[in-house]
Amino acid sequence: MGDETEQGSGRRRGRRAGGGAEARRDARRGGGMESYGFIQRSMKPFEVLTDEGAELIETNADLVLEEIGIEFREDEEALQMWRDAGADVQGERVRFPKGLCRDLIRTAPSQFTQHARNPARSVEIGGNNTVFAPVYGPPFVRDLDGERRYATIEDFRNFVKLAYMAPAMHHSGGTVCEPVDVPVNKRHLDMVYSHIKYSDKPFMGSVTHPERAADSVAMAKIVFGDDFVDNNCVLINLINANSPMVFDETMLGALKVYARAGQATVISPFILSGAMAPVTPAGVLTQTLAEAMAGMAFAQLCRPGAPVVFGSFASSISMQSGAPTFGTPEPALVLYGAAHLARRLGVPFRSGGGLCGSKTPDAQAAYETMATLNPTLMAGVNFVLHAAGWLEGGLVSSYEKFVMDCDQLAMLQRFSQGYDLSENGQALSAMREVGPGSHYLGCQHTQDNFQTAFYRSPLTDNNSYEQWLAEGEKRIEDRANEMVRKWLSDYQAPPLDEAIDAQLQDFIRQKKESMPDAFT
Amino acid sequence: MGDETEQGSGRRRGRRAGGGAEARRDARRGGGMESYGFIQRSMKPFEVLTDEGAELIETNADLVLEEIGIEFREDEEALQMWRDAGADVQGERVRFPKGLCRDLIRTAPSQFTQHARNPARSVEIGGNNTVFAPVYGPPFVRDLDGERRYATIEDFRNFVKLAYMAPAMHHSGGTVCEPVDVPVNKRHLDMVYSHIKYSDKPFMGSVTHPERAADSVAMAKIVFGDDFVDNNCVLINLINANSPMVFDETMLGALKVYARAGQATVISPFILSGAMAPVTPAGVLTQTLAEAMAGMAFAQLCRPGAPVVFGSFASSISMQSGAPTFGTPEPALVLYGAAHLARRLGVPFRSGGGLCGSKTPDAQAAYETMATLNPTLMAGVNFVLHAAGWLEGGLVSSYEKFVMDCDQLAMLQRFSQGYDLSENGQALSAMREVGPGSHYLGCQHTQDNFQTAFYRSPLTDNNSYEQWLAEGEKRIEDRANEMVRKWLSDYQAPPLDEAIDAQLQDFIRQKKESMPDAFT
Repeated sequence: MGDETEQGSGRRRGRRAGGGAEARRDARRGGGMESYGFIQRSMKPFEVLTDEGAELIETNADLVLEEIGIEFREDEEALQMWRDAGADVQGERVRFPKGLCRDLIRTAPSQFTQHARNPARSVEIGGNNTVFAPVYGPPFVRDLDGERRYATIEDFRNFVKLAYMAPAMHHSGGTVCEPVDVPVNKRHLDMVYSHIKYSDKPFMGSVTHPERAADSVAMAKIVFGDDFVDNNCVLINLINANSPMVFDETMLGALKVYARAGQATVISPFILSGAMAPVTPAGVLTQTLAEAMAGMAFAQLCRPGAPVVFGSFASSISMQSGAPTFGTPEPALVLYGAAHLARRLGVPFRSGGGLCGSKTPDAQAAYETMATLNPTLMAGVNFVLHAAGWLEGGLVSSYEKFVMDCDQLAMLQRFSQGYDLSENGQALSAMREVGPGSHYLGCQHTQDNFQTAFYRSPLTDNNSYEQWLAEGEKRIEDRANEMVRKWLSDYQAPPLDEAIDAQLQDFIRQKKESMPDAFT
Repeated sequence: MGDETEQGSGRRRGRRAGGGAEARRDARRGGGMESYGFIQRSMKPFEVLTDEGAELIETNADLVLEEIGIEFREDEEALQMWRDAGADVQGERVRFPKGLCRDLIRTAPSQFTQHARNPARSVEIGGNNTVFAPVYGPPFVRDLDGERRYATIEDFRNFVKLAYMAPAMHHSGGTVCEPVDVPVNKRHLDMVYSHIKYSDKPFMGSVTHPERAADSVAMAKIVFGDDFVDNNCVLINLINANSPMVFDETMLGALKVYARAGQATVISPFILSGAMAPVTPAGVLTQTLAEAMAGMAFAQLCRPGAPVVFGSFASSISMQSGAPTFGTPEPALVLYGAAHLARRLGVPFRSGGGLCGSKTPDAQAAYETMATLNPTLMAGVNFVLHAAGWLEGGLVSSYEKFVMDCDQLAMLQRFSQGYDLSENGQALSAMREVGPGSHYLGCQHTQDNFQTAFYRSPLTDNNSYEQWLAEGEKRIEDRANEMVRKWLSDYQAPPLDEAIDAQLQDFIRQKKESMPDAFT
């Protein structure tokens, strides 16, 4: 891969030499759309647990790790690594001496940069930063004609394009939908390529097989260069625990590939409370902490210093039907608590998103979405998967909901900036000019500020009732449908070095030709 | 009023002698519906301003009061009261020596009880408590057949009934819609009567004329007894400032009646930022604080110790059309800041609610509603008008949205309870029983807790897509429509002493006969 690497590195060096300001201007111009950059919160995160409460959960999680343990399944290498690290391994069950996981996690960075191929779009994961990424995983889409159907690679590309164009979407994500028209063993190649080709925002690698993880790393190296990838994070990758208290061979295989390549893993217990964890928020939190610590510690065994993210996906189930529910109060409590525990552990945190159970982008979808999105920001989540486009419990990627959610993300981003307490922000001059009984519509201060004073939604309707009637009584999803069509029609791809593009396509062709299609 | 008073007092004493527990059981049985009682938050409120930021706003508000001043219009008595208190009065403009308003407000209680005729439903206003009250003021309704039309007294009664039945609605509110089929000068009698007759939750008095305020107090005395009303808060009343920096004669007249009767006034600058206040959140906050302090101080001049609430209704306008907008980030900042300032001032705070600009209960309505409701709880608002039913910028009371919002209020209330960190909450026994790779569906801990473990929404759909299709692809407003019909059909009035009812009706008849109908 000598030539590819040289070119990749050269391009990278060129960009870096070009300096941040110019690159930032380029980024803002990308596709003709504004780009906000990731959120740097000015406010402290909100905490629901007291310090004593957090200590109790930590003590209990340590008990779980020590007494019950975690299973590392069908991975003899992993079990040997744990034996060597001093854990008690019985069969596939690993029990951890008190403090072992916590000690190992000390080598993990508290914050790291995930580099984008456009450096102005690189993101900081951890600290006071919040990065929004699209929905991850749905096999279905609700398309622009209202049809619910299996997703295709064209849908995948469309969601990458929308994420690229949305100002408050900071990340291109991973499986923005599952392109089921592409063979399952080759899908990852087209997915990773689409993120690189149609966006210049950071993206995620494949985790469905260790070899696909390795392909993701290889493709990243074509873009960024071998050395750069070895020393920097350019891929962030979702490693779900198989809760309760199990990591399976697929996830462990992908985890090992990424951690050893110095790439970030998001260790996420995936919990529907009542099924994969106890029914109480404190119980969910305890198990989540134990599982996440075991996974993050394992990543440090693979390569000390490899970036890891404490992940938590927690929702509840209906105790009547067993169906997952979203936007309810108990998962919001878990979210705040887990974010707090991650801060105490000193690692970045992933959770939240625009989760909902509704089948259609109606008020239920929006209530539930906001009941998770607002806590996501307030809890100080660092990396937010599913921030836009999630519908029907994650079975469906919705075009309309994608842009509707992005509008809300932009508002949360604006909110996160807090008060402007400058002299202009204080506005005493306006009050002195206007005085009692008048109005501020034409005063100097208003004229000076009106263009940027308020967030301006491209989707909400605030016109008079009569005007709304005259315009056809549109609901927000009707306006969202129009906006998606316009965005996809206006889309312009960010520039990609032709040689790199050719190398990527060569790599993909060779890989595809090396094996027969598989659809399961 | 001797007889009425005796009966009222007697009934009241009887209830109080009967003890809280029995009354609470009665309350829970009322209308066959569960009732949660007001929220006692277990969490600290979230603050966006630093202490230094809050001090800056306070300094600026003091400057506004001292230099610019507030106009008290067409109320010579009020101006004389301010002269006597040491203010500088020029024409109708009152300028306040530094610290005067703040000193006067010291006599106001930091928390008070608003008594309901069912003592189990009395609410605490202030401190860590949050009380939800319905939408206030819309002249229109969107009815159950989807028609948008002027509201009637029947609509009014219906919303009182719904508020009575909703478990997380703690208050019957005031003008739940404007019954435009009743003459404007007699409307308040039917409104106050409806709150008393069809609910046993606390309610609000009329503020549209001093005489109507006096009628509200008189009717309250029939129910609670003269002495009780003189010594306790049984009415809470919305006094809007006419921003910027004006109180008009109507509001001052009503304020004086209520404050002198020892009843609570909510002094609320009503601000659309950019029109009635500067375009910056810090500017809105400064003006809001100045106006609210002047109003609350005036209430203390009327009767030291009269309960007052620092109110803030703040939204923005579209700088393109001038239309009010809701659910945007800037008003959320104002909300957090004003709540913080009220706490520093030591008075209860009113703001927030389920505000939205949408014409229909679609996703826009829900996004916007939640973008205000969530901060409402997190900021620690004490009294929340418009908590349910608000549509179309407050022009419309929506039946469907009322119950949809109430569902969200119930979830916020559940959230506000925080973590259960008891041994059962910690759920270590469940994790020990289940262990790695199994599930919690049938374990003992789940069986012991499943009935109460998760908030169960009566409105959201979490079934499979196939089931949803089979059931007719209902949106949440379709299910809400069905629920409203069922609630109104199931409604049972809380018991009301027949003699009191007769006295109320006599009072209303006499008042109505004493003057011709007026429709403007």
